[in-house]
Amino acid sequence: MAETRKNGTCPFCRIASGEEHAYVVYEDEAHLAFLDRRPLFPGHVLLVPRAHYETLPDLPEESVGSLFRAARLLVLAVEEAMDAEGTFVAVNNRVSQSVPHLHVHIVPRRRGDGLRGFFWPRQSYRDESHLLSVQEAIKEAVERRRPS
Amino acid sequence: MAETRKNGTCPFCRIASGEEHAYVVYEDEAHLAFLDRRPLFPGHVLLVPRAHYETLPDLPEESVGSLFRAARLLVLAVEEAMDAEGTFVAVNNRVSQSVPHLHVHIVPRRRGDGLRGFFWPRQSYRDESHLLSVQEAIKEAVERRRPS
Repeated sequence: MAETRKNGTCPFCRIASGEEHAYVVYEDEAHLAFLDRRPLFPGHVLLVPRAHYETLPDLPEESVGSLFRAARLLVLAVEEAMDAEGTFVAVNNRVSQSVPHLHVHIVPRRRGDGLRGFFWPRQSYRDESHLLSVQEAIKEAVERRRPS
Repeated sequence: MAETRKNGTCPFCRIASGEEHAYVVYEDEAHLAFLDRRPLFPGHVLLVPRAHYETLPDLPEESVGSLFRAARLLVLAVEEAMDAEGTFVAVNNRVSQSVPHLHVHIVPRRRGDGLRGFFWPRQSYRDESHLLSVQEAIKEAVERRRPS
């Protein structure tokens, strides 16, 4: 798959090409990580592939491993540097994705920091048949897409 | 690194070993994915390594790629099966982690579904020197941990 750049319109491509400044904390041949300028908490890092892919499913399968190995290294580094009790690692695909260039959020966390609210309230499935129908739909979609 | 199981105490190890029922939507040799029983939205999937690792940094580096390739497949499957507009992919390391067995949340999203609030309010860095000191701390922690 050809590597694409959208230097004209994509802020993360402009950062990757050096056209735009960022507070870079990590780089390798294929990736770059920098501070989010409006962090959830200081030390909030965005890790991006240098090439322009919009979402995680758009990233070629063979590039997934190196992206998340870099994310794992950044988890360790952010926890240590920010003296954090934990981290939150997240990717928004399309919805809540402010920049349509795949990015992994790595956010330092502390107990009681106020972000817990996100994971609540949880819902319930209506009943067993609701659970089974959702299970079946996802299983079938997995099987259709799974390499045989 | 030895594969460990904590069948006595860890609910995800019990699911992985078949001791406890779950609504499984994906499995391969090293991973299992099943419906979260108290979902953010129906179709919320948890993907786990079968072996017991507590957090993403505890997962051996060589196992990171296959875990997130499975996550990418599940993003595609969940979006299709749930007719979603997007997905949220997240790992909580320690803080907000209800089960101390590494799990990747894959959550179907729709615009206006109410989860957007999590990503706000954002903070600001106090000033340029605050940004530079955080950048430097993380860069140094990366360099200490980076394979040379």
